[in-house]
Amino acid sequence: MDTANRMTDARKKLQIEGNFPMQRGSLQDPVIAYETWGSLNSTKNNAVLLFTGLSPSAHAASSTIDPSTGWWEDVIGPDKPIDTNEYFVICVNSLGSCFGSTGPASVNPSTGTRYGLDFPVLCLEDIAQAGQLVVKDFSIKKLHSVVGASMGGMTALAFCLMYPDLTKNLLSISSAARSLPFSIALRSLQREMVRSDSAWKFGDYNPNNPPAEGMRLARKLGMISYRSAEEWTIRFGRERTTDTEGDEHASPFGIDFEIESYLQAHALKFTGTFDANCYLYLSRAMDLFDAADHGGSLQSAFARTKLSRALVIGVRTDFLFPPIQQEELANALKECGVDTEFQLLESLQGHDSFLVDMDRFRPAISKFFL
Amino acid sequence: MDTANRMTDARKKLQIEGNFPMQRGSLQDPVIAYETWGSLNSTKNNAVLLFTGLSPSAHAASSTIDPSTGWWEDVIGPDKPIDTNEYFVICVNSLGSCFGSTGPASVNPSTGTRYGLDFPVLCLEDIAQAGQLVVKDFSIKKLHSVVGASMGGMTALAFCLMYPDLTKNLLSISSAARSLPFSIALRSLQREMVRSDSAWKFGDYNPNNPPAEGMRLARKLGMISYRSAEEWTIRFGRERTTDTEGDEHASPFGIDFEIESYLQAHALKFTGTFDANCYLYLSRAMDLFDAADHGGSLQSAFARTKLSRALVIGVRTDFLFPPIQQEELANALKECGVDTEFQLLESLQGHDSFLVDMDRFRPAISKFFL
Repeated sequence: MDTANRMTDARKKLQIEGNFPMQRGSLQDPVIAYETWGSLNSTKNNAVLLFTGLSPSAHAASSTIDPSTGWWEDVIGPDKPIDTNEYFVICVNSLGSCFGSTGPASVNPSTGTRYGLDFPVLCLEDIAQAGQLVVKDFSIKKLHSVVGASMGGMTALAFCLMYPDLTKNLLSISSAARSLPFSIALRSLQREMVRSDSAWKFGDYNPNNPPAEGMRLARKLGMISYRSAEEWTIRFGRERTTDTEGDEHASPFGIDFEIESYLQAHALKFTGTFDANCYLYLSRAMDLFDAADHGGSLQSAFARTKLSRALVIGVRTDFLFPPIQQEELANALKECGVDTEFQLLESLQGHDSFLVDMDRFRPAISKFFL
Repeated sequence: MDTANRMTDARKKLQIEGNFPMQRGSLQDPVIAYETWGSLNSTKNNAVLLFTGLSPSAHAASSTIDPSTGWWEDVIGPDKPIDTNEYFVICVNSLGSCFGSTGPASVNPSTGTRYGLDFPVLCLEDIAQAGQLVVKDFSIKKLHSVVGASMGGMTALAFCLMYPDLTKNLLSISSAARSLPFSIALRSLQREMVRSDSAWKFGDYNPNNPPAEGMRLARKLGMISYRSAEEWTIRFGRERTTDTEGDEHASPFGIDFEIESYLQAHALKFTGTFDANCYLYLSRAMDLFDAADHGGSLQSAFARTKLSRALVIGVRTDFLFPPIQQEELANALKECGVDTEFQLLESLQGHDSFLVDMDRFRPAISKFFL
């Protein structure tokens, strides 16, 4: 499977020479894919580093080189909340992902075959470290901001903890300082759905015959955890559907309600665009993350950062990264003397709101970059 | 598979002679299993009819005939909240279940083979109707109360709507007047996990080789939706486990956290005790239920009941049958003139609280039966 053919690949690549040490292993000569928007100014103090959630590529916004719509198109660009007339934005495809950066779907140069489960256990700290090498490659001494939503927010936090001198400001969106058992349970079950698909073959599947059924089920559970009951009650209610696409089993347990058709459509779209092993590694990396590992407690960890300003945005209807975890993060930052603002938005779309409720997110983000 | 051998079977059976009409089909000569506690008084006005959630049998409490602990042992018995010194309690094993009542795992008398997917689409109204035949068999003209939690609460509601003259009072616990898309999505995905197991064979599995893997995954999602994030944060936090029982796939994606071990233990316990097709039918029946089908709107439906008193109990941390649905039900009953009390309990254990947080549930239920 050449993932580059299936979704826009990042247009720039950093080839790391030699050994790349990870938290629990190492890689030889990995590649880090990224995209940039805007221009780095002469004092190199206008750079914004963006880490992504689990599934997006580095293509956060369109550009002249790649005019296709990015996953955060409304946020990054000229005169947009992160205004590329002013800022130089770098978005990194996570190490372990499959959109240009080295991951389990990549060929291991020392064996000539795909890593699969030979890829070392992945931690968000490894993704942060790979991002730091991109920053270093630009000879940037201090970033204006590190930004991330969901898994990307956790990675941004790891970055601030690992490279305190590199970062002035933090924008954390719908993220958390650590994974708690409820979200671990959901992700663990998603991974089990993939692993239970006989096509997974303990990670050694044929790229042309991936565990598509397991990925489809896992994506449905993902969608359930990414949105909110409130949104769906308003949007779908108890409406019935006539669209039963891809529903092999049909009656009496097939697609009947609109909500079932919606989940099916989203799941089918995802399956085939994301490598199953990459998904497993990134999902597990989220479970493993705990900012307190960087200092014994959140407070003593955050005391190591040299952040000047932080904005923590959360969403009331997000039950995957719930408001209580946003507050915990904001409070820990405040207690360490960081000038921290906490905004709890009333978006109905749950965890995914940062991708869809732009009317609420645009002004919140704009204010931070003024 | 003889389910009777695997879990306590109800000790009494009502053999229905001839055709049993259902909402969407019919059955020949079905059996309804039930248990009773206490004695029916001479005026036959002390009977309480209890409908169960999706998975329990009719064995709600121990008795001299069957001294094993029932699923609501703390609630039913002498000097307990539903005091069997005073009340005659009947608990019915749901039609479509596999603990004595006729369901998809039963042998179809007209073919001599198991019903499987030839079982008609099941509605909660059919379960209510079967319960009504048991009540009729005792020549009870009016029940003191109909009681149910979760699916059982919906069935109790269906009963009140279908047989308004039979019921004086309603106790609804962690239930709802209809299924909304969030809970439909969760159950739909659970069913899909079972159907995706190749051992399911479109419902035609060998009882000795059931879709155990699909049932195990479905049960894990069930457990996730039955408890609460708050409970798990307090109970498990980020504790690691050494217990990896039944974890075939193990490292690097195996059981690592306590919460994963907990889910695995519960799922393994469930698999093998419940027939997969029965599970699918009962799960779907919940999705299909909407009290408004009995009158165009909730209000006009409830106007048909002749209830005198109702108690609606919900739990703050229940996101499967959330507080907003408890309020909706209580308000609709009030608007129809039923003397309705609504109690929102602070239990941490989410939807399952009625099975475990007895310190909060005992007094609430006791008060209703004083």
